[in-house]
Amino acid sequence: MDARTRSRYERLADLITGMVDKGALAPGTRLPSVRAASEQHRVSVSTVLQAYRLLEDRGVLVARPQSGFYVAAMRGGALALPSASRAKAKASTVSISSAVAALLEHASNPALVPLGCAVPDTALLKSRRLDLALARAARLHGTRHNTYGPPRGEPALCREIAKRAMRFGRALSPDDVIVTAGCTEALTLALLAVARHGDTIAVESPTYFGMLHTLEVLGLKALELPTHPVHGVDVAALARLLQAQRPAACLLSSSFGNPLGAVMAEADKRELLALLASHGVPLIEDDVYGDIHFGRERPKPFMALDGGANTIYCSSFSKTLAPGYRIGWMVPGAHAQQVLERKLAFSLCGPVLPQVALADFLANGAYDAHLRRMSRVLEDNLARMRRAIEASFPPGTRVSRPTGGFVLWLELPRHFDSRALFDLALEHGICLAPGDVFSASRRFRHCLRLSAAHAWSERIEKGVLRLGRLACGLISQ
Amino acid sequence: MDARTRSRYERLADLITGMVDKGALAPGTRLPSVRAASEQHRVSVSTVLQAYRLLEDRGVLVARPQSGFYVAAMRGGALALPSASRAKAKASTVSISSAVAALLEHASNPALVPLGCAVPDTALLKSRRLDLALARAARLHGTRHNTYGPPRGEPALCREIAKRAMRFGRALSPDDVIVTAGCTEALTLALLAVARHGDTIAVESPTYFGMLHTLEVLGLKALELPTHPVHGVDVAALARLLQAQRPAACLLSSSFGNPLGAVMAEADKRELLALLASHGVPLIEDDVYGDIHFGRERPKPFMALDGGANTIYCSSFSKTLAPGYRIGWMVPGAHAQQVLERKLAFSLCGPVLPQVALADFLANGAYDAHLRRMSRVLEDNLARMRRAIEASFPPGTRVSRPTGGFVLWLELPRHFDSRALFDLALEHGICLAPGDVFSASRRFRHCLRLSAAHAWSERIEKGVLRLGRLACGLISQ
Repeated sequence: MDARTRSRYERLADLITGMVDKGALAPGTRLPSVRAASEQHRVSVSTVLQAYRLLEDRGVLVARPQSGFYVAAMRGGALALPSASRAKAKASTVSISSAVAALLEHASNPALVPLGCAVPDTALLKSRRLDLALARAARLHGTRHNTYGPPRGEPALCREIAKRAMRFGRALSPDDVIVTAGCTEALTLALLAVARHGDTIAVESPTYFGMLHTLEVLGLKALELPTHPVHGVDVAALARLLQAQRPAACLLSSSFGNPLGAVMAEADKRELLALLASHGVPLIEDDVYGDIHFGRERPKPFMALDGGANTIYCSSFSKTLAPGYRIGWMVPGAHAQQVLERKLAFSLCGPVLPQVALADFLANGAYDAHLRRMSRVLEDNLARMRRAIEASFPPGTRVSRPTGGFVLWLELPRHFDSRALFDLALEHGICLAPGDVFSASRRFRHCLRLSAAHAWSERIEKGVLRLGRLACGLISQ
Repeated sequence: MDARTRSRYERLADLITGMVDKGALAPGTRLPSVRAASEQHRVSVSTVLQAYRLLEDRGVLVARPQSGFYVAAMRGGALALPSASRAKAKASTVSISSAVAALLEHASNPALVPLGCAVPDTALLKSRRLDLALARAARLHGTRHNTYGPPRGEPALCREIAKRAMRFGRALSPDDVIVTAGCTEALTLALLAVARHGDTIAVESPTYFGMLHTLEVLGLKALELPTHPVHGVDVAALARLLQAQRPAACLLSSSFGNPLGAVMAEADKRELLALLASHGVPLIEDDVYGDIHFGRERPKPFMALDGGANTIYCSSFSKTLAPGYRIGWMVPGAHAQQVLERKLAFSLCGPVLPQVALADFLANGAYDAHLRRMSRVLEDNLARMRRAIEASFPPGTRVSRPTGGFVLWLELPRHFDSRALFDLALEHGICLAPGDVFSASRRFRHCLRLSAAHAWSERIEKGVLRLGRLACGLISQ
């Protein structure tokens, strides 16, 4: 529900919930009296009372007779982090496509509560200005642009993308950039540029199932690296693995990877880059979530730390602005020639008008404000989702604490079966992503991913709470 | 130059040239007197005289003193057809990418006379109604469509494409259709669905260099089939080849293939289908030129003849309406699952709004009239280009006689070097496609392809004439 259509007491309740979620109101804190709050927020006494009672119903506040309203205590404090994954000594052949296809089919079903799909809601993306730029370009310059564009992408768009890279500390020329059909094409072109059928690619564990699907289609094996839910890939463990193995590439998230939301510290990133360079293993990085950061500074991608010497950088506008436009980009560095040859064979070039419109939109300068606003909303969504998980999931549930992106990774006790929860949840009209699709060795069956990419609503909140209760039911069987 | 901006005498000259090109005015025919023509065409006497003199300058007419103007005799009659290519007993490893890249770089240079690139001019494509449909979709429904579409493509577009397939005798359901990033992605997905690295693909010879580039990138070999410039692939020769070899697929044009413009007779197509089916070799067909036919009937693609049992059909809207939109489609038949899995890994799905706009445009019903008009223009262009070739190229030059599409294939005497002509022509501001890029074994170095996809103009006519003179110069060296 949009802020403008919510009643006063609901908006006040939202405000208080936000303060609780962000820690501005600690558990046990006494709230201002109804009269004081009425003056403070310039609303009627009855509005405050309605808000307090709503929050009492939701478990955010507790009422103590003769004393007032207090912030409810967390049940057992904040949930613990999921465990760091362990190293796999051997690369796995990937066979995940049918599981992924089944998930995607449900994830796009609008009848289900949308916790399964990591695509922001159109209401959050606010693409109106971009759409109007497209309408204008089509109306005024459609004929001129009705031709094959350069395989690298529209020069104006390459220019805007190169300019933006300055923001994370990498000076690019427009010629360094290749526009792609989303980050998906970028990653596939990157893999094909450095690997051959049968080769091994080192990946985070858990990692995005779309990546695993791509490895499967290209006939590549996955070597799962030990990964910490906050600090990312364990560089020392990677060093040990590289003594015995020689993957064709290492494929990592730049920041806030899906599903963990981890970010490697800059020093760790540098150490990893040096390690890979010394073994002659190129790094392919996926930075689609980098622009959605809750901290003040956007984390630097690997490319900004090694000057692109040994990295192929891939990103897109699909998570932050326009999934429907399918525009991604890459900086292939030393592999530009191989990437361009493959792009010619795969798609020749991208549609011209959407690129022209996006270049126009970016040149306009409103994108940064949009990213800031959107990041705030998603941070808030994640906090609300964590609260709902705390309130409903079985004791012992562990949850990731991402500082960017919009998904949470849940780890339940070992014997928990997230496939059973997936099936049961569908019967209750809720979609989630079961954990086993995030690993080539299907090791995360007791885990699951929830996405908070839709405008928060009662439907979503109730969906998460219901899911927690279903999980409790399954675990006690 | 557009018809509306040409002067009266030029338009009359065009009319007469068209009648000569189409045989309505045979060589040696006497034209009406200037006075009679003036009455017939309702123009002034001086306009007719200007037109006749222009045509005399161009070699279309000859003036006989005291007698009048006559249609000029062809120099030695119509040019002969290029030879049919011979069978290659062995498949060739393809290594053509750098030559293709060099050609594409020049082919898109607007400063050159555009005879190199087989993409219709924006003036012929008349995409205005489509662009306005895109502008409308973006303005009114942009937000709704800002999401990942179904991997198969927008349902409305699949529906319109399925409906159109009825026109060439194949009843399709929308679910049979997969929308792709142009025919390029369709062909690549088709190849990846049936072939593995190192496999052999049987192709026409000469064949489109883009196809050869794709085979190279995918690590596939090319087996070049003997191909006649009018009748297409030699089925009996293919039968002999299949006794010794087992290609992973046969990849052919459905009709008017680039560069020959040949069309197999329907009986030959059926025979070829039966042959391939008996050997268990799937047929991948490329029908991008099928809608540009000069005869009354659109030739049926293979898919319409075997009910799609052993074919993967690929096509696009790039040659007839919207190269800038990058929308193609395929009917993968029995290989749908493999194709969809690969599409997910390569591009996930296509941009949504261009698909919505194209569906809207097709539903509107003006596409068939557009195709008829465009085919007439291109037929006329090809006739003019043949005339200019006849007037200027060395004796013994052979030229294809396509009944659809918009390219001509020229064969010169064996010792002729079209690479030398390519380099020389660039110096004179003219682009062409040298013959050797149309074969994996680089066998057509004495041939070249000229494209007549731009609105005919004096610049283009002079370019062809100049090219002919340059060829004469090279051959006499």
